[in-house]
Amino acid sequence: MISVNPDRFLSDLHHLRSIGAAGVGKGVVRPAFSAADIQARHWLAAQMADCGLTPHFDPVGNLFGLAEGPSLLMGSHSDSQPEGGWLDGALGVIAALEIARASRESGGPAISVVSFQDEEGRFGVTTGSAIWSGNLTLETADTLTAHDGARFADERAKLADVAGEFVDPGRFTGFVEMHIEQGPTLDTSGEQIGVVTDIVGIRDMRITLTGQQNHAGTTPMHLRRDAFQALSAFNSAINDRFRNVVTPSTVWTIGHVTLHPNASSIVPGRATFSMQWRDGDISRLERMEQIIRDTAAEIANSSGMTLEFGPMLGLDPVAMDSALQTALADGAKVVAPGKWRRLVSGALHDATNVSRLMPVAMLFVPSINGISHDFAEDTAEPDLVAGLQVLAHAVTARG
Amino acid sequence: MISVNPDRFLSDLHHLRSIGAAGVGKGVVRPAFSAADIQARHWLAAQMADCGLTPHFDPVGNLFGLAEGPSLLMGSHSDSQPEGGWLDGALGVIAALEIARASRESGGPAISVVSFQDEEGRFGVTTGSAIWSGNLTLETADTLTAHDGARFADERAKLADVAGEFVDPGRFTGFVEMHIEQGPTLDTSGEQIGVVTDIVGIRDMRITLTGQQNHAGTTPMHLRRDAFQALSAFNSAINDRFRNVVTPSTVWTIGHVTLHPNASSIVPGRATFSMQWRDGDISRLERMEQIIRDTAAEIANSSGMTLEFGPMLGLDPVAMDSALQTALADGAKVVAPGKWRRLVSGALHDATNVSRLMPVAMLFVPSINGISHDFAEDTAEPDLVAGLQVLAHAVTARG
Repeated sequence: MISVNPDRFLSDLHHLRSIGAAGVGKGVVRPAFSAADIQARHWLAAQMADCGLTPHFDPVGNLFGLAEGPSLLMGSHSDSQPEGGWLDGALGVIAALEIARASRESGGPAISVVSFQDEEGRFGVTTGSAIWSGNLTLETADTLTAHDGARFADERAKLADVAGEFVDPGRFTGFVEMHIEQGPTLDTSGEQIGVVTDIVGIRDMRITLTGQQNHAGTTPMHLRRDAFQALSAFNSAINDRFRNVVTPSTVWTIGHVTLHPNASSIVPGRATFSMQWRDGDISRLERMEQIIRDTAAEIANSSGMTLEFGPMLGLDPVAMDSALQTALADGAKVVAPGKWRRLVSGALHDATNVSRLMPVAMLFVPSINGISHDFAEDTAEPDLVAGLQVLAHAVTARG
Repeated sequence: MISVNPDRFLSDLHHLRSIGAAGVGKGVVRPAFSAADIQARHWLAAQMADCGLTPHFDPVGNLFGLAEGPSLLMGSHSDSQPEGGWLDGALGVIAALEIARASRESGGPAISVVSFQDEEGRFGVTTGSAIWSGNLTLETADTLTAHDGARFADERAKLADVAGEFVDPGRFTGFVEMHIEQGPTLDTSGEQIGVVTDIVGIRDMRITLTGQQNHAGTTPMHLRRDAFQALSAFNSAINDRFRNVVTPSTVWTIGHVTLHPNASSIVPGRATFSMQWRDGDISRLERMEQIIRDTAAEIANSSGMTLEFGPMLGLDPVAMDSALQTALADGAKVVAPGKWRRLVSGALHDATNVSRLMPVAMLFVPSINGISHDFAEDTAEPDLVAGLQVLAHAVTARG
């Protein structure tokens, strides 16, 4: 059994938090390639070297701590949101470091560590792991620009002095990422551990219903073709029709609405809105899509409107490796009996990309009040340590 | 019986349309105090003088054609929307001119004519008649500015060389305004004449529902406080609850919606929307207000939201004078048997203001496809003439 050192783990986690500390609560400001991000990566490289791993920067700023020979890869990312929490990404990197260190001390299995670059999407979406896994070409990535105008090509050049080649994924037997949940499920249920079964797939589509803009005083109700009324009817209908299709972890959101001309005295002639839905099961995503398309068409027909669907953004769900899931679940049974569950990740993670290369698994610990991407993001330290211990059990059992 | 001359009436109407002609269909561009508006008023003054009326400009550009002694006032406005139709306002002025002229020719009752200024609200709302009736003080009006920065005080000075005093309303026994419907009711039913029973009252209120902004991937449906969902539920509920309260002429509109932060991946934390309702019966307006307030409070309570009502804009309904209504209805029975109805005006008119001073009535003719405030605004010429003949009957009967 690998014997982890919770104090050392928490101490490292707080040290990493000091690099780019926001000065507001435990918040951090450590976006990809900022001075704080680069400083944090050099500090992490030093910790890797201290415990016998070989630090290695790849051409896009992903930092690996490599064990010799075949090894299990563990980690997450150490870049943050522009106003980020101290645990989003950092937790998975420091937990991986402690497991790798403790495993070497205990003569356990070989563990490598990674901190991917720009998971938070200053340039793309999970940029560093997307490039490494082949989801995004380096050529395309180099053309990406941040909101501040910085180019990815110029920013990654800041680490050119230490950068080597891309790491061969063939040396890793799998990837395990520990992360905060970033949602309220575990916090609400009072549980300590979540074993992720799937990272959800996303579908996102813009829908436009066009009726007839008209005078809100002289147009009788029965002659109106009111685009807001059509949107509201569509929303009610899909909420009703989804009932027999969804699971408790399925989510759907109308988060963006634009009415035209958007004036209190004018019957709205046009409503453009976003329809986003997420689920771990690709066939359920497809059934929901069919309900959405059919319902919108019915509403448009019955209310004399024209209907337009924008292009659909689609990211397919990723199933976690069953053997790795079992190892994490077995650890959870020991460390947090009756206080863990299997759940679906509603957010994307680096593991989504890495799943193209090798078996992956994810472990969640609670987010207090479900808060993340905010300086107020936090997790109780006993829960952080419980997560670390589940990892230790899983790695030991896997051998 | 006053004998009107339809050809002369239509000829004058087309002549007025030529002043400020848009060059697009029959459209006109004749906003208050524009060169075209002033030219049109001088032309109207000459027509008034030609038929023995005394033209009189008041200090704010309202043009009267005064008969001697007590008289019935008829008219509307000759200013237009920035992109206006040829009949909105102009019809009522030219019809009044023809009735006054024909009545003098036939030895009928004394008729005065008016073209109010800025009914279309370049500065205020029905500005000229509002000032004349005491709904708006001249002092306040003088501070009003148009979108182009022009001040009312400077604009009305353009007519200072011809302006006299305000006209004493005591010389008029009543006011009759003929107007296009600006809605689809008569056009849809194939009728020629509408006798207005009431000009609706309006209530308009901004409502804000505040829930909790959240991640659209990690926040389960049952833990969401989604402001758009609350708005949609509110909308469905009031549509249902209004059923037992409203009449076919009642209207209500959610025309403006703002979600915050209005992003497809974020559960909306706040929805601000307009709620406007119109009806001819003040007690019905009040019952609807109670339903709106109660329903919004129920939705907010049941979904854990806070609720805020903005200040309520209120304009009370104005009932048309019953004797004048009867005279118009009697005329409609002769001129358009089986092809007329009583109806409510969903739009505001100069008659709303004038009702403070004397008995008022309104007569509508159809708007093709319900279109108004648009170059495409039009009415079939037989319908225009039918309206003129109803006025002639009513004026003759009133004696």
